[in-house]
Amino acid sequence: MKYRRSGRLVDMTNYFLAHPHHQIPLTYFSEKYESAKSSISEDIGIIKEVFESKNIGTIETAAGATGGVTYIPTVDRLQTEEQVDSLCERLEDPNRLLPGGYLYMMDVIGDPSLIQGLGRIFASSFRNSEVDAVMTMATKGIPLAYAVASHLNVPVSIVRHEHRITEGSIVSINYVSGSKKRIQTMSLARRSLKPYSNVLIIDDFMKAGGTIRGMMDLVSEFQSTVAGVGVLTEAVHEEEKLVSDYVSLTRLSQVDERERTIKVERGNLFQGKYYFES
Amino acid sequence: MKYRRSGRLVDMTNYFLAHPHHQIPLTYFSEKYESAKSSISEDIGIIKEVFESKNIGTIETAAGATGGVTYIPTVDRLQTEEQVDSLCERLEDPNRLLPGGYLYMMDVIGDPSLIQGLGRIFASSFRNSEVDAVMTMATKGIPLAYAVASHLNVPVSIVRHEHRITEGSIVSINYVSGSKKRIQTMSLARRSLKPYSNVLIIDDFMKAGGTIRGMMDLVSEFQSTVAGVGVLTEAVHEEEKLVSDYVSLTRLSQVDERERTIKVERGNLFQGKYYFES
Repeated sequence: MKYRRSGRLVDMTNYFLAHPHHQIPLTYFSEKYESAKSSISEDIGIIKEVFESKNIGTIETAAGATGGVTYIPTVDRLQTEEQVDSLCERLEDPNRLLPGGYLYMMDVIGDPSLIQGLGRIFASSFRNSEVDAVMTMATKGIPLAYAVASHLNVPVSIVRHEHRITEGSIVSINYVSGSKKRIQTMSLARRSLKPYSNVLIIDDFMKAGGTIRGMMDLVSEFQSTVAGVGVLTEAVHEEEKLVSDYVSLTRLSQVDERERTIKVERGNLFQGKYYFES
Repeated sequence: MKYRRSGRLVDMTNYFLAHPHHQIPLTYFSEKYESAKSSISEDIGIIKEVFESKNIGTIETAAGATGGVTYIPTVDRLQTEEQVDSLCERLEDPNRLLPGGYLYMMDVIGDPSLIQGLGRIFASSFRNSEVDAVMTMATKGIPLAYAVASHLNVPVSIVRHEHRITEGSIVSINYVSGSKKRIQTMSLARRSLKPYSNVLIIDDFMKAGGTIRGMMDLVSEFQSTVAGVGVLTEAVHEEEKLVSDYVSLTRLSQVDERERTIKVERGNLFQGKYYFES
């Protein structure tokens, strides 16, 4: 269907947003809109400018016969700080305190638009890591893992504690839960992760890191590599963590059950590594 | 920041897509872009036209002091048929067959962009049902439930079989699994669903309907009502189903383990009720 520039801009914006990390040949658009490639290039220039100035992402152009344009979701440092700071404040609400010093987090995890935003942050941080798949642990890691995966355009592998008959042959490993020092089992369906994948591990919470460490071992069982590790919240842990290289959005630094206070600060995303460089 | 029309169209399109079922006052845009309301209205007219002709959704306008514009994701019958038919074909792959006549579904459930598309279909079908929350059962219903909820702009409540200490006080009910005739328990955190909510129940699979029936009972325990029930796949079941009013996208009509054949057809979404009327 033939469109004027204004119509093309709306439709192309929608198409880019629905297809992140997906290389699109210019001919796709020029045929779709019956427009010259030069007009399409101008349209893309306008979209790229708005995407970059409005912190939506960027559009990369690859030249040549196999070339095309790719929308990459990005979030800059300032916007990330705003989102993380507002999350920290929300997590410090003393009504979250549960017996044993646990925090109620389901309202955060159950909020799709918040989780989409946090998923964008991880997708932006790991945008150059050539991620092939996202792995997470059932149940509470799943929403964030999907939010990350949908912005990276990769599939999700869900690891479970129990073994289900509806998953076919599975790969199981034992691991030691770091904080409880208990031996547990985790498993993943054999066909749920392609061998030789580069896997981004995402979870909602990390204390000693035993579960994450287990997922890293599971990745090896699939002849695959770990592209990175991202957690929504890490808790301070007296002993050395079992995982050294990870990215956290927030850090639970103190829980006082008697005084009913919770202290949550920015995670290590803002330190050291260059997650905000392009 | 002041923008020309082309820039506004790109940014507003992104904003609408990120905020479905969310009423936005015109002043929000006119202040954001330092533009006259009349120009903003024209912009919205262009976006609405493209959204409708391209099957992205529609933009509804409410007049008056409390008025504004709302983006409603919709999918028409033709596009729904195409998506569902392609899913049926994918599900008929005999390699899915597992011992006991079960089907491997994790590749479908683990594909975020496919699940987003299926979630849009349910969000479109139930767009006028005044849904306040989406409820699902851990683990495999979660991805689809989030996809639906994010297009309806509502929170998700995750029901579980086990009881976790990190959820605070919970509400548990017993229910009879319809196909296995076994008494089981399901529970939901007390604060994970507001009383007097209108709840859309979403799950990946329904056979006799025992799990769905249990979730419906759980909804009542929260003084809430059931807005509707949506399942990705229903299986033919010899006896009467425990749930009469539900919407299925696909229907597993036959599994022959010996011949290694699977027959999957369109679900009841296309029958009777007017899920495609606006």
